[in-house]
Amino acid sequence: MPESTVLRRRSPQARATKYEQVADDLAQLIESGTYRPGDRIPSVRQMSVRQQVSVTTILQAYAALENRGLIEARPQSGYYVRSHIPRPAPEPEISAPQPDPAQVGMRELAMMVLHDTSNPELIQLGTAVPNPALLPTAKLNRILTTIARTIGTKSGEYDFPPGCEALRVQVAQRAVAAGCRLAPSDIVTTCGCIEAVELSLRAVCRPGDTVAIESPAYFGMLQALEALNLRALEIPTHPRDGISLEALRFAIEHTPVRACLVNSNFHNPLGSCPPDDLKKELVALLARHEIPLIENDVSGEIYFGEHRPSVARAYDRKGLVLLCSSFSKDLAPGYRVGWLAPGKFKSTVEWLKFTTNIGTPTLAQLAIAEFLAGGGYDHHLRRIRRAYARHVSLMSQAVMRAFPDGTRVTRPQGGFVLWIQLPNRVDSLQLYRLSLRAGIAITPGYIFSATDRYRDFIRLNAAFWGEREERAVQRLGQLITSFRA
Amino acid sequence: MPESTVLRRRSPQARATKYEQVADDLAQLIESGTYRPGDRIPSVRQMSVRQQVSVTTILQAYAALENRGLIEARPQSGYYVRSHIPRPAPEPEISAPQPDPAQVGMRELAMMVLHDTSNPELIQLGTAVPNPALLPTAKLNRILTTIARTIGTKSGEYDFPPGCEALRVQVAQRAVAAGCRLAPSDIVTTCGCIEAVELSLRAVCRPGDTVAIESPAYFGMLQALEALNLRALEIPTHPRDGISLEALRFAIEHTPVRACLVNSNFHNPLGSCPPDDLKKELVALLARHEIPLIENDVSGEIYFGEHRPSVARAYDRKGLVLLCSSFSKDLAPGYRVGWLAPGKFKSTVEWLKFTTNIGTPTLAQLAIAEFLAGGGYDHHLRRIRRAYARHVSLMSQAVMRAFPDGTRVTRPQGGFVLWIQLPNRVDSLQLYRLSLRAGIAITPGYIFSATDRYRDFIRLNAAFWGEREERAVQRLGQLITSFRA
Repeated sequence: MPESTVLRRRSPQARATKYEQVADDLAQLIESGTYRPGDRIPSVRQMSVRQQVSVTTILQAYAALENRGLIEARPQSGYYVRSHIPRPAPEPEISAPQPDPAQVGMRELAMMVLHDTSNPELIQLGTAVPNPALLPTAKLNRILTTIARTIGTKSGEYDFPPGCEALRVQVAQRAVAAGCRLAPSDIVTTCGCIEAVELSLRAVCRPGDTVAIESPAYFGMLQALEALNLRALEIPTHPRDGISLEALRFAIEHTPVRACLVNSNFHNPLGSCPPDDLKKELVALLARHEIPLIENDVSGEIYFGEHRPSVARAYDRKGLVLLCSSFSKDLAPGYRVGWLAPGKFKSTVEWLKFTTNIGTPTLAQLAIAEFLAGGGYDHHLRRIRRAYARHVSLMSQAVMRAFPDGTRVTRPQGGFVLWIQLPNRVDSLQLYRLSLRAGIAITPGYIFSATDRYRDFIRLNAAFWGEREERAVQRLGQLITSFRA
Repeated sequence: MPESTVLRRRSPQARATKYEQVADDLAQLIESGTYRPGDRIPSVRQMSVRQQVSVTTILQAYAALENRGLIEARPQSGYYVRSHIPRPAPEPEISAPQPDPAQVGMRELAMMVLHDTSNPELIQLGTAVPNPALLPTAKLNRILTTIARTIGTKSGEYDFPPGCEALRVQVAQRAVAAGCRLAPSDIVTTCGCIEAVELSLRAVCRPGDTVAIESPAYFGMLQALEALNLRALEIPTHPRDGISLEALRFAIEHTPVRACLVNSNFHNPLGSCPPDDLKKELVALLARHEIPLIENDVSGEIYFGEHRPSVARAYDRKGLVLLCSSFSKDLAPGYRVGWLAPGKFKSTVEWLKFTTNIGTPTLAQLAIAEFLAGGGYDHHLRRIRRAYARHVSLMSQAVMRAFPDGTRVTRPQGGFVLWIQLPNRVDSLQLYRLSLRAGIAITPGYIFSATDRYRDFIRLNAAFWGEREERAVQRLGQLITSFRA
């Protein structure tokens, strides 16, 4: 906790008596927000027991705090934090950082980008969060509410791995459309897709191992690899057809690769989606070398075309593909419900899930299972596919109008992000800093690689597209153009 | 998926035509439970697109499945799985295992014990789950329901680390009673306590490091260490005063110990609770060697005495104690909400939390925060403290009546488990097997250590105490006595 500049009236040099210590401790808790205006603080008796000092000392301390204007006694009720306390000005959520690329680690930069999301002052073109206005949150909450009322004590109990059966049945049914035959018993539920990917990595790798991954790669995946002490081997990846099989083959033949991690459909940030035969070839190539494939299909349902693309898992015959997904991009990020079909690594994954957090929240799983079973999901998906297709297209056009010549933009057939190459004099970290000052959150290309090869790229989220976002893109165009000077 | 013995009518040797393949695939999905009686299967058109075969072929396949009695067409609606399908008998949830201690890994045994919990046939004296009848699930669900109705889209959104502020304020306030001054900004929320401990271990250790831990230790902690490629250094631990400081000091001086992990209050399985001065000494000893202390206080609120015991974190002056807890033992296991105060490792913990599962479920955190703020928590805690104190006492008496001479039982002053040393001819794994056959789940001592030093111990959960459980203890006594022969 920071030292108080407002609430402490005593010089810190002076040796405090016991009651002053008690008063200072409480003043700090009030300053730090542990006790807020209107909160009742512990009673004199409670405090005396806890601090193991006499009631008299506590009474002295509370009197001192009353004198400082921090608390007030209310008859028959106790002591309360006063409503109007002089407080230091609130600290800004995020500073406008001036990081030097050579000094800022990807970890810090990734966390900065993440925290931008919680800043309501910013226009959100940064993190790849779905548009809350396009989520069926009210409907889902109603379902959750009904279940919570009717299910009784079950909702409060642990749901041990493999997790909620009703949800696993729904997931297995939906997998058919992606070309997969899954039994409910093939599936383990998780707290989101990133947890599914992390459990997969831990099931098939040991610390120090090398994992082949698309380049660029979703920064959450790169951070997960770093956090697990795994090395990322970045493989050239085509913005439409996905990971280069030629490059991957070469890498496998020259490096001990323990696993391959791909974001198969509507890759983040590229938007790539390999055709079926490339997925089939990828699975076959890895199977020949007995290398597990961890497949992140989190955006697979957000396709703009006529049909749901297949998953690589559809072509797996050896139990080597660990298919991971969640409902965070298309349904309810805040529910934290995902799943994986870990193939032959299932018992290890269940064990790791237990050691990670025992199980997935019970009610949230049941609510999503019910939403899927009720048929509302398909209707909802049709709606967001149309919306995101439109948003991506409009943002792409706006970028091409506003950004200078030399700009290149991906043409995703699903998802809701654009990957944009800027004319190469533009450093995306500098642009990130400038755009934050202009009230716009973007994601600098740096964090999509362990190297700085994407210094002249940015990722933009089209999910929120509207007039405000269109003006933000125009403003970004001006900022980029200013780099000419 | 297992080969069908009932649903496949065609000899597997015969070469299948395309329509037979489609029919067989669907039959398998029906057998495995992906499509259940009454479920609608994909329409002919959908299936034709997905399988890339003609509509005629699909019609042939569906006709074949109708002939096999698996599906039926309903006019204007589609094809449905029939209600009465001959199915293979359901597999038992858990076999009566006959494991040889030398052959069964602790991992498998721990997962077996965990799965016992889901078996409604068993009397639950095994895993340390709280008694659902003593959880305020209905009240908590009502709070959740109200929040879900009023909060709007926010409940569907990600809650990035450090997590829900309203909850962090409540946690900081309650920490005062345990002797801690915490600001809300000192806290990170998690999916339960085990996740908090795992994040702590990952923040302070690297794979291969050694962690000093009490012996016996909660098997979830030992499994987490194994899953993180950390080595457990088991330290002698007193059943009432906790970890031996003399032994720990010796260990630190002779082994490179990277961290120390303790379950400070009402240790699982021992029930130990070191007095304040021992906690203070523990913190001071570790601080002298700059060794982080990971403190699991998950049962700290379930005390039978007059006052809440302090936490070691209360004596930390260097930011080296990572205090971990949750609401899983006393409030809502199924909500999966916990927290940690990671001291000086906070930014690393936030980063690891993001790479693990992005954030903690939004609504569940808000509901628990509201429950705590409303004051219902203290009332509830008083109730369960009385109940568990009574259950523990009654079970202890029943054990002493029913078990043979030479049995020793702990005397916990909180929590709800007993740690029981059997006369040393009794192997707890054999007893586990026999008791499962008798319809009783217990936890064999083996899994509380990486070695087999607790072969003659069992842990019993007193949370569910009643007549049924009393009879189960009598039956256990008979089984144990039978080892004499």
